Amino acid sequence: MQKHITNNEILQMEQSQRAALINSVGGFKSVCLLGTIDERGLTNLAVFSSIVHIGASPPLIAFIVRPDAVDRNTLTNILETGYYTINHLNETIFEKGHQTSARYAKEVSEFDAVGLTIDYKDGFLAPYVKESKIQLGLQFKERIDITINGTILIIGQIQHLYFPSYCLCDDGFLDLEKANTITCSGLDSYHKTQRIERLSYAKPNKQIEHVKLKYIE
Amino acid sequence: MQKHITNNEILQMEQSQRAALINSVGGFKSVCLLGTIDERGLTNLAVFSSIVHIGASPPLIAFIVRPDAVDRNTLTNILETGYYTINHLNETIFEKGHQTSARYAKEVSEFDAVGLTIDYKDGFLAPYVKESKIQLGLQFKERIDITINGTILIIGQIQHLYFPSYCLCDDGFLDLEKANTITCSGLDSYHKTQRIERLSYAKPNKQIEHVKLKYIE
Repeated sequence: MQKHITNNEILQMEQSQRAALINSVGGFKSVCLLGTIDERGLTNLAVFSSIVHIGASPPLIAFIVRPDAVDRNTLTNILETGYYTINHLNETIFEKGHQTSARYAKEVSEFDAVGLTIDYKDGFLAPYVKESKIQLGLQFKERIDITINGTILIIGQIQHLYFPSYCLCDDGFLDLEKANTITCSGLDSYHKTQRIERLSYAKPNKQIEHVKLKYIE
Repeated sequence: MQKHITNNEILQMEQSQRAALINSVGGFKSVCLLGTIDERGLTNLAVFSSIVHIGASPPLIAFIVRPDAVDRNTLTNILETGYYTINHLNETIFEKGHQTSARYAKEVSEFDAVGLTIDYKDGFLAPYVKESKIQLGLQFKERIDITINGTILIIGQIQHLYFPSYCLCDDGFLDLEKANTITCSGLDSYHKTQRIERLSYAKPNKQIEHVKLKYIE
């Protein structure tokens, strides 16, 4: 049976039910840990599932932040220092990653509180997560205020990119499954993946083909 | 071995390699078909993997569109009529969905070209995809131009939401796996998922628990 829910019914739902439903209906999401540091040297780590690709040249990634949210230290630190890291969540650390969403006091570093390891490298200001296999170092580029509901889009440019060399294919594709990267749905559901197929570039009147992954290593 | 790539190395990569790499590093993505219609009644269908949750109250979803892209009919139609649909891709239709990314002539409806069925219902202007199990009808709300690279963020409000009733849990969570919704990575890799766990709401000094899914039906 197909269920139909209208805008008015959504607006009348109990708040936590609505949050669970509407966070589910957009589909599976990227789920990453954002690492930041403030001017005094205090680190912060927070899980985000609102990451979106903006462009490859220059390499830009964005995420949505709620100004009233638990994760507001992330926003404050990015605006203060101009740098942050994005670290893929994997099956080994997803519970610790989820725990970063608890409302810790400002003076507490979530790295310590949840038991993840700070990784500083190549002179980059913001802390990476050592247990994460795919790590991005970003420079803050632009803040866009979404006035319709008070959220903020933060756009950053990739300055450093780290990944296991065995994940890289000869055409530039990165095999996220080999890095144990996971995905999430809703507010709290974590999923591993299994590739169905890679597909060839689509053209009119041409049959789509399956693309074999050719690893460099 | 961990591989390290810098911003300068990314900018110097061959264009298709860079696109494949940078589209991969953001993690797994939602992958959906956007259905639109123009003022003359010609339908359009295009696959998008840049969907992001903006907020639950009001229920808002956004996606990124490139103005120079194959999918520019989607943008034109949304601005012209104010309505569009988001339809989850599933394992049965992912190849047809991918084929919508081919550069068909403006007069060709991708529904016909790839063999997916138009579904009109409840007086909504834009066409749904009948083969999709989770369907959203959206009203255009806001266009935000991202000047840094010329892309556009389109924000819409959910007016109608359809899903199989057996997917709904008692706390509002929707089980996307039961609807066969899939995820994608990079430009062309499609993946099914397998739930690891749902996790309880995180609080400081409280052990995270696994949450059992309780279906309404």
